[in-house]
Amino acid sequence: MKLTDYRVPLSGGTRGPAALRELVELALSALEVGAARRGGPIPAGGPRALARQFEGVFRYVQDGAEIDEGALPRLAELLAYGSADPADPSCAAHLHGPPLAVAVAADLAVSALNPSLDSWDQAPAATALETALLAELAELVGYRPEEAAGVLTSGGTESNLMGLMLARDHALAGACSVELDGLPAGVRPRIFASEAAHFSIQRAAALLGLGERAVTAVPVDRELRMDVGRLAAALADAVADGARPIAVVATAGTTDTGAVDPLHPIADLAARYGSWLHVDAAYGGGALLSDRLAPLLDGIARADSVALDWHKLGWQPTAAGIFLVRRAETYASLARRAVYLNPSDDEEAGYPSLLGRSLRTTRRADAFKIAVTLRTFGRSGLGRLVDRCHELAHSAAASVRAEPALELHCEPILSTVVFRYRPATADPRVADRVNAELRRLLLREGRAVVGRTELPGTGPGRVRLKLTLLNPNTTEADLAALLKAVVRAGRETDG
Amino acid sequence: MKLTDYRVPLSGGTRGPAALRELVELALSALEVGAARRGGPIPAGGPRALARQFEGVFRYVQDGAEIDEGALPRLAELLAYGSADPADPSCAAHLHGPPLAVAVAADLAVSALNPSLDSWDQAPAATALETALLAELAELVGYRPEEAAGVLTSGGTESNLMGLMLARDHALAGACSVELDGLPAGVRPRIFASEAAHFSIQRAAALLGLGERAVTAVPVDRELRMDVGRLAAALADAVADGARPIAVVATAGTTDTGAVDPLHPIADLAARYGSWLHVDAAYGGGALLSDRLAPLLDGIARADSVALDWHKLGWQPTAAGIFLVRRAETYASLARRAVYLNPSDDEEAGYPSLLGRSLRTTRRADAFKIAVTLRTFGRSGLGRLVDRCHELAHSAAASVRAEPALELHCEPILSTVVFRYRPATADPRVADRVNAELRRLLLREGRAVVGRTELPGTGPGRVRLKLTLLNPNTTEADLAALLKAVVRAGRETDG
Repeated sequence: MKLTDYRVPLSGGTRGPAALRELVELALSALEVGAARRGGPIPAGGPRALARQFEGVFRYVQDGAEIDEGALPRLAELLAYGSADPADPSCAAHLHGPPLAVAVAADLAVSALNPSLDSWDQAPAATALETALLAELAELVGYRPEEAAGVLTSGGTESNLMGLMLARDHALAGACSVELDGLPAGVRPRIFASEAAHFSIQRAAALLGLGERAVTAVPVDRELRMDVGRLAAALADAVADGARPIAVVATAGTTDTGAVDPLHPIADLAARYGSWLHVDAAYGGGALLSDRLAPLLDGIARADSVALDWHKLGWQPTAAGIFLVRRAETYASLARRAVYLNPSDDEEAGYPSLLGRSLRTTRRADAFKIAVTLRTFGRSGLGRLVDRCHELAHSAAASVRAEPALELHCEPILSTVVFRYRPATADPRVADRVNAELRRLLLREGRAVVGRTELPGTGPGRVRLKLTLLNPNTTEADLAALLKAVVRAGRETDG
Repeated sequence: MKLTDYRVPLSGGTRGPAALRELVELALSALEVGAARRGGPIPAGGPRALARQFEGVFRYVQDGAEIDEGALPRLAELLAYGSADPADPSCAAHLHGPPLAVAVAADLAVSALNPSLDSWDQAPAATALETALLAELAELVGYRPEEAAGVLTSGGTESNLMGLMLARDHALAGACSVELDGLPAGVRPRIFASEAAHFSIQRAAALLGLGERAVTAVPVDRELRMDVGRLAAALADAVADGARPIAVVATAGTTDTGAVDPLHPIADLAARYGSWLHVDAAYGGGALLSDRLAPLLDGIARADSVALDWHKLGWQPTAAGIFLVRRAETYASLARRAVYLNPSDDEEAGYPSLLGRSLRTTRRADAFKIAVTLRTFGRSGLGRLVDRCHELAHSAAASVRAEPALELHCEPILSTVVFRYRPATADPRVADRVNAELRRLLLREGRAVVGRTELPGTGPGRVRLKLTLLNPNTTEADLAALLKAVVRAGRETDG
C-alpha cells in the first residue's frame, strides 16, 4: 500500500473493528505458527542465540514510500516463538500467570478505544466502570465500599509505593511536601517489614527519599512468616532510640512460599504505635476468591492500605494491579488541580475526576478486563481456579517428598512449592551450584522454566528451586513430567 | 458452559489463538454496535446519566455454577458506547490519540503471551526486542545508542519522575539512599522548570520527598516558552541563597501550545551550574519523526534524560511512554539484586536483566506495538502523520482567525490550537464562564469534545479552549464543522 493513497486505518470509530478484524487474524495466525515452532515452554538456546535470530527479523527498518504490511505477522511470530509461555505446564517459575482468553479479548477492546482515566472527557464509561469495580474489590477485602477508595496500578510494586507514600505523608503531616531541610529535626522515619517481604518495599523507601536503611527487616520463621515477637521488639527498640515507626508492612503471600504474616497481631502492634498498616497481598489476595483459602487473610480489613494484583491469582494480562485504602480521606497526597483536566467548575458541574487517585496522568483502563473476568466467572468460578492451583501445589509437594533425589522446603501454603535437588555430596556449596546450574540447563534446552530463589540468611546452602503453579489446566501427569525433568537435569549437572 | 466440565480457555500455547478468535469476534462486533449507538464523539448526557445506564449492565454479578459468556459483549458494547472516541474528528480535547489499528493488533499479541520484562525467563524475545527498540529511539533523539540506556514507561509522568529521581540521586551522591536525617545539613535541592511545564514535575518532587516547593516555576512568554533570562536569574538567586540546583527541566512541547523551550541556552545554563538536564518531550518528541519539525528540538541530545511518549504523536494505545538517559552509567539508582529474578550467577552466565531499568517489577512488553508500528510505517511514514496533524492545526488556526466570534491565542507550534469564544461583553469573568460552559454544553449534547485550559498567571480572563489535533484522518471540512459547533454553543451559552 502506498502511503499517499490511504486514510490511516485506526482502531476506533465504527470502521475500526473491520480494520482490526483483518490485522488481528494476521497476529493470531502468527501466534499459532510461533508457538508451534517453539514447541515447548521456552525456545531452546540461550539469550545470545535468540538475540541473533531476533536481529535478522528486526534489523530491517521500512523507511520508503510503502507500508510494510508484513511487519506485524513477522514480529508476532517471533514474539510467540521467543516467549516463556505460562500456558505451558512446564513454564512454572514466577508469579507470571497464563491469561484467560476472555481477559485478553476484553483488553483488546481497551486498546482499540484507548480511554484514559485522567479525565472524564477521555473516559466516560471507563471512569464509571473503574469506580464500580473498586467498590466490589473493596468489599472483597472486607472494607466498607462507601468509605474506601482505590485505583488500578501497574502491579504490586506501584501499590506498595503508594501505600508507603501515604504512610509517609500521613505521619509527617505535610512535612514531606516541603523542602527536605524543612523536616523537623530528629524525625527518623522507620518502616517495618519482614525479611521475606518483597524488595519493592526497599525500592519504595529509596524512591520516597526515606532511604533503604529506613526499612527494618524483621526475621521470619521457616515458612517465611514474620516473627511477631521480633516485630514487637524492633518497634520498641526503634521508639526507644527516638525513631518514628511510620509504617508496618505485612506480607499476605510471600513470593516464594506464599506465607501470610499474622495479620491480627501485626494490626494490634501497628495500632499501638500509631503506624500505618499496609498489607502486600499482591499474591495472597487471590485467596480472597476462594472460600477454602480466604480465612488465611483474616484481619486484612484492618489494614490502612492493601496491594492486590490480578495478573497473579486472577489470570489477567499485565497490568492488573490494585491499590485500596480503607478510608478515602487518608488518600490525600495526590489531590491536585490541573486546569486542563479537572478544573473546579467541572467538578462543581458533576464531572468526576480520578486524577487524584493515581501516580500517573494518562492511564489505561485496566479495570475493564478485570470487570469482564469477574462477570464471566463470578467470584466462585475464579475461586475454583485458585483452589485448583492450590491442589496442584500439594500434589507437586507430595511428589517431591516421594522422590529421594529431591528435598521439600515446606508444605505449600498457596500455589508454590519450594524444594531442591540433592546432589551426591552434602557440601552446601555444591548443592547451590548444582541447583542453579540445573535450572539453566532446563532453560537452555527449552525443557522447563523452573524458579530459583534463595532462603533468607547468609552463607551457602540457601539456593532453592521453586514451582509457581498458576495454570489451572496443568495436570498431575504434567507435574510428574516436570519433576522428572528436574531430577534428570540434576543428575546431568551433578555428574 | 458448566464450570465443572471445561479446561479454562487460556490465551497462550498453540490453542490460545483459536480461543481468542471466537472471543475477539464477540468483542469487535460489540465495539461496532456500541460505536454506532453512540453515533458521535461522546455519548450525549452527563456523568450521572451514563453511570445510571452503566449500573444496569454492570450490577449483575455471576456467582453460580455457570460461566456468563454474555459478559464480554455486553460490557464491550457499553465501553464503546460510553467512550470519548479519539478516532472521531470532533473528539479533539486532549493528548489522547486515536490508535493505529496495527498497533492495537500488536498489543493483542502481547496480552495473549503476557511476557514480563522483569526477568529474561519471563520474556526472552521481549527482552531482546525492547533493548533493540530503545537503541533505535536513542538514535532518534541523537544519543549514541551504545552509550545510552532507557526503558518503556507508563507515560510522560513516570518518565519525568525517573529523570528527577536520577537527578536527585546523582546530585546528592547517595545521600538520599540513607535516612532523611542523614542528609548533609543545609542541602536545599531545587528543580527549575517553566510555569507551563507539566504538573507531573511538582508531583515528582513531592513523591521524591523533595517537596513541591523545591520546584521553581520560571516565567514563560506568550507562546508558553521558558524565558531563559529569567531562568539564568533564578539559578543565580538560588545559588546565592545557598540552595542546590539539582535539575533543570526543559519542556519540548507544552501540553497547551506545543511550545518548545530554548534547548541550547538551557543546556548551557544547566552545564554551568552542574545541574541534571531533563527534557520533557512527551508531546514534542513526535517532531523527531518529521523532517520538517525535527529542527524545533535541536539540542535535545544534550539532555541527561529525555521523556518521550508514543501514545501522543505516535498513535499507540496507552501505555507507550519512553525514558532515555544519554549515559547508561548515570542510571544507577535502581540497580538491585533480587535472588529470584536476577541472581549474579545468571548474569555471569549471560542472562540479561532489565530489572534495574524500571520502577516496576512485573512489566508489560509495551515496546512490541511501538516496534511493529515503526516497522510498518517507517520513520518517514509516521513523520507524514505528524506533518498532517501540524497542517490541520494551521488550517484550524486560519479558520479561527477568519471567524469574528473566535479569538486565536497564538500560532500553532505542533498540533494544538488555543483560542476562545468572544462573548458579547468584554468582561473577562463572563468570557471565562461562557467558554467553560460552552464546552460542557458540547459534551452534554454529545456534539464535540473540545479542550479547556487556562493561561498562566492570576485573575480572570485566562480560560481558553483548545483543539488537540492528533487524528490524521480529520479533514478541513471536519474542522470547519467543529468550529461551527463551538460558535453555535457559544451563542447558546452567551444568550
